[in-house]
Amino acid sequence: MKATFYEGNKTIRIGECQPVAPKAGEVQIAVSYAGICGTDLHLYLGHMDRRVTFPQTLGHEMSGVVHAVGEGVTHVSVGEPVTVMPLDPCGDCPACHAGHNHICQNLKFLGIETPGAFQSYWTVPAFTVLPLPKGMSMEHGAMIEPLAVACHDVRIGEVKAGEYAVVLGGGPIGTLIALVAREAGAKVLVSEINPYRLELLKELGLETINPKEQDLLAYVQQQTAGAGADVVFEVTSSSVGAEVMTQLPRTRGRIVVVAIFSEPVKVDLFRFFWRELKLAGARVYEREDFDQAIALAASGKLPLDQIITDIYPLEDLEKGLKQMESGGKVMKILLRCSADE
Amino acid sequence: MKATFYEGNKTIRIGECQPVAPKAGEVQIAVSYAGICGTDLHLYLGHMDRRVTFPQTLGHEMSGVVHAVGEGVTHVSVGEPVTVMPLDPCGDCPACHAGHNHICQNLKFLGIETPGAFQSYWTVPAFTVLPLPKGMSMEHGAMIEPLAVACHDVRIGEVKAGEYAVVLGGGPIGTLIALVAREAGAKVLVSEINPYRLELLKELGLETINPKEQDLLAYVQQQTAGAGADVVFEVTSSSVGAEVMTQLPRTRGRIVVVAIFSEPVKVDLFRFFWRELKLAGARVYEREDFDQAIALAASGKLPLDQIITDIYPLEDLEKGLKQMESGGKVMKILLRCSADE
Ligand SMILES: [Zn+2]
Ligand SMILES: [Zn+2]
Ligand SMILES: [Zn+2]
Ligand SMILES: [Zn+2]
Repeated sequence: MKATFYEGNKTIRIGECQPVAPKAGEVQIAVSYAGICGTDLHLYLGHMDRRVTFPQTLGHEMSGVVHAVGEGVTHVSVGEPVTVMPLDPCGDCPACHAGHNHICQNLKFLGIETPGAFQSYWTVPAFTVLPLPKGMSMEHGAMIEPLAVACHDVRIGEVKAGEYAVVLGGGPIGTLIALVAREAGAKVLVSEINPYRLELLKELGLETINPKEQDLLAYVQQQTAGAGADVVFEVTSSSVGAEVMTQLPRTRGRIVVVAIFSEPVKVDLFRFFWRELKLAGARVYEREDFDQAIALAASGKLPLDQIITDIYPLEDLEKGLKQMESGGKVMKILLRCSADE
Repeated sequence: MKATFYEGNKTIRIGECQPVAPKAGEVQIAVSYAGICGTDLHLYLGHMDRRVTFPQTLGHEMSGVVHAVGEGVTHVSVGEPVTVMPLDPCGDCPACHAGHNHICQNLKFLGIETPGAFQSYWTVPAFTVLPLPKGMSMEHGAMIEPLAVACHDVRIGEVKAGEYAVVLGGGPIGTLIALVAREAGAKVLVSEINPYRLELLKELGLETINPKEQDLLAYVQQQTAGAGADVVFEVTSSSVGAEVMTQLPRTRGRIVVVAIFSEPVKVDLFRFFWRELKLAGARVYEREDFDQAIALAASGKLPLDQIITDIYPLEDLEKGLKQMESGGKVMKILLRCSADE
């Protein structure tokens, strides 16, 4: 079988290896598609090397077909289409005991701390494997994980019908947040500066603004009759985003920090006091978010096909990473991982 | 009657003037005691001059006796002991329409935008006047306003019985927050560096830590079996406070920003993501907080007498401000304002 290995120092090796037979409580999946995540790019660029044991197979957004099951696995069977919720919590830390096992203090994230999906066969703990509904395309199945992130973010943001939501940053996660918030009944504005993404967002029927060309704050004030936004999603990881996020919300408005900030940034805490703003961090997802993502994808209401801008063979992982790094004409790239193709 | 006037440039003038007769819908109060707030010190130091029309009488924490009522005022009568909730909202901005009139976008704060309580007679809108319960001392009556701030902060912090709360900064508001959180059933730790305040906090039976002498983070980790604090109140307005506040909470722990930060400070947004922390700003109070403050003070459970460290005549306003500015041996200073004394 084929596998990819991140070897550190911006190096991906393509190799052949033996599939890992599933032990008791494990499932071996023939991977159909695996999406390249911004996190995979961060890993490739070396930003997260201290979490990785080299060489490591990355990838955690995927769809596939059960190829073999280990002893005691009954909830899925060979031939069944599945996806994976790639979290392996310890079960015994204060976070796990508090019911927050998705942010377990000793969390193993499949595809970072353990081998990931960028290979033909992936063997994972059975409890991470979720069946995909009949009729869902395998391409859409590979979108469930990032869609679950968006469902979690919108849930943490407590988005309600009729509310005005602003998404700062229209990459794959920002776009999915905008779509999920729209499904929740919100009016959504996406702030983005990349012309290719702006065009794509418009094709998805989303309202957009380019803050380099138009005054974002004035626009939101005007659209909300001077009140401000009900909720703002910060998905840019930029100091500008951290500044704008506090200017836009109404009194008691909410901010959700989705982006991963590599270092502390200046934040206007006075504004939190003055308007009684609320901010919440959101990380990965819980099971209910995965379930919602599967239901939303199955409903056919989301334009997932348009978000998948490229599908490459597994061997082109590095090409995809470089394309993402260049920040050019790209939204979500999927890799075709199946051994059969 | 006597009045004090802030004339800008760190200058307070003591003057004689005519009491303002109450118009329809107004109440004239003979002021008994008025507390000097940190906000009054900020005003005196010139930090808030753009909100002030000179000369201005400051002061907004007070008790008094109704001296005269204007036409149509029926809820209080002459001779009745009262306090004032010093907020005059516009009633017609987006914040007021959203039910957040305590943070009205055009809020007039009595004692900043309009004349305040540092005078013998104070004439205010009747809707701001609240009766004090029989038997409450007038000194305690003057503590209702800052106590309402603390009740609001603890409510915004959603403090529950059995939780572990850390208060960063043990000045008057931090101390009142600690006492109110303790009444709510929380285990409370106050972090403070001023030796006088540390001593006073201990006398109030509060657990304290001096973070210059002991590792605050390690202590909280140890006290919470590695989980972290349930809720942290940032009351220092310092960059150190803004740093520590994100290190202490457990997964999904809460941070309440009570302090007024004069400029943006560095905040570790990664920590919000990583632990799914929540932050909320808290400003002044709502009517239910005032009601709770009155009930708490009337219950006799709070050691308010020990928090009132000095009582001076009205003429000593400037002396009190300078004492607070020096950061020395002081918690809450009251001024005796009554015309009779
Ligand atoms: Zn991802
Ligand atoms: Zn755990
Ligand atoms: Zn005050
Ligand atoms: Zn208003």
